[in-house]
Amino acid sequence: MNFPSKLIEDAVAEFEKLPGIGKKTALRLVLHLLKQDVSSVEQFTHTIEKMRKEIRFCKNCHNISDQEICSICANPKRDSSLVCVVETIRDVIAIESTNQYNGLYHVLGGVISPMEGVGPDDLKIESLVQRCASGKVREVIMALNPTIEGDTTIFYISKKLHGLPVKITSIARGVSFGGELEYVDDVTLARSIVTRMPYESYLVKQGD
Amino acid sequence: MNFPSKLIEDAVAEFEKLPGIGKKTALRLVLHLLKQDVSSVEQFTHTIEKMRKEIRFCKNCHNISDQEICSICANPKRDSSLVCVVETIRDVIAIESTNQYNGLYHVLGGVISPMEGVGPDDLKIESLVQRCASGKVREVIMALNPTIEGDTTIFYISKKLHGLPVKITSIARGVSFGGELEYVDDVTLARSIVTRMPYESYLVKQGD
Repeated sequence: MNFPSKLIEDAVAEFEKLPGIGKKTALRLVLHLLKQDVSSVEQFTHTIEKMRKEIRFCKNCHNISDQEICSICANPKRDSSLVCVVETIRDVIAIESTNQYNGLYHVLGGVISPMEGVGPDDLKIESLVQRCASGKVREVIMALNPTIEGDTTIFYISKKLHGLPVKITSIARGVSFGGELEYVDDVTLARSIVTRMPYESYLVKQGD
Repeated sequence: MNFPSKLIEDAVAEFEKLPGIGKKTALRLVLHLLKQDVSSVEQFTHTIEKMRKEIRFCKNCHNISDQEICSICANPKRDSSLVCVVETIRDVIAIESTNQYNGLYHVLGGVISPMEGVGPDDLKIESLVQRCASGKVREVIMALNPTIEGDTTIFYISKKLHGLPVKITSIARGVSFGGELEYVDDVTLARSIVTRMPYESYLVKQGD
C-alpha cells in the first residue's frame, strides 16, 4: 500500500504492531481517528499512556491494581483463606465475571515452560509459598490451563507446598455444559469418566 | 466484565470506541500494551497524537497530506490534466496501490445522500468545478462507488461541469476478473452485456 502521507504511514505502522491487527484494519482505525476531534484523540492517547504509566501490581497477589493492594485483596468481604492460582490477569477477569468466586487470587505471570525459557524463578511461586506459610491460607485452588506446561506447574507448586497446612485442589475438568459428547476430545472424555462426580454435586452445579 | 482496575477499564473503553473492536479485543490490546515498555507505549500514543494534530488536507485535491500541497499534486511527473474524482482518502490509497494511474485526484469527502443529510454543499464539488474551469483539466474520471448515492453524485457533478471543456468518463463497470458469471448479481451482468467492450480493448486491459 502506498500512503500519501508519512504521518499516516507511521500511525498505521504503530497500530499494526498490536496483536490481530493487519495493515487494512490499521488503516481503517487511523482514518477513523482522523475523523474525530483532536480532543477525542488526545483523550484516547492520554488514557492509554496513563494506564501504562500508572498501573501497579498488587503486592499480595500480583494482580493489576491502581493501589499498592488490589481491590480484591483489600475487600474485607472476601474469604482470604481461599487462594485461586491463575496464569494471567485475563484469567482473574474471566473468573471474576462469573460472580461465583469469593476468595483471593495469585497471579503467577505464566507457567513453567522450558521450551520458551520460563523457569520456576520467572514466576511468582516463591511469594505463593510465603502466603501459604503465613498460616492464613486454608485452600489453594489451581486454575491453570490444562496443558502440559500447566500440569507441570501444578506439580511443581504442589511439591513446594508439601508439608504446609493447606489443601490443594484443582478446578473441575470435564465435558462443558452445552458440549456434545461426540465432539469432545478423547482425553477430556476419558478423564471425565474416571473422575466422575456424585449426582448430587452435579445437581448443585447446575442449580448455581 | 469486571475489571480489577479503573485504569484498565478506561483504556478498554477507549479502544472499544474504535470501529470493529469489541470488549474482548479491546482487553486483549490493553493487556498487550501493558506488557510493552513504557517507551514503546509512548511511541504508540505520540505517533497517533502527532498524526491527528499535524495532518493537513491538500489545498488542491483535499487528499491527506503532510504539506500544503500533497505529494501527488506536487509530483511534476504526474499528468495534471487528468483528475480522478473519489469519495474518500481510502479510495486514493486503493487506486494508488494499483500503480496504474498517473493523474491527479479530487477527494469529495463523501457522496450526496439526502437520507444521511449530506447535500452538495457538504462535499468538495465547488472546488472541483473551479479546477475544471481553470482550463488545466482535460478529463475527469468518476470513480465513485456504484450505489444510488454515487450515481446521483456523478449526475450532479456532470450537470455542474456542463459547458466546461472537460471530458467526463467513469471507471469501467462489469464482471470482475476472476469472477464467475453464475455468482455475479443481475444488474452487473445485465449492464456488462449492454456496455460490452471491443475485444481489442479487453486484450489491452488483460495485458496490463
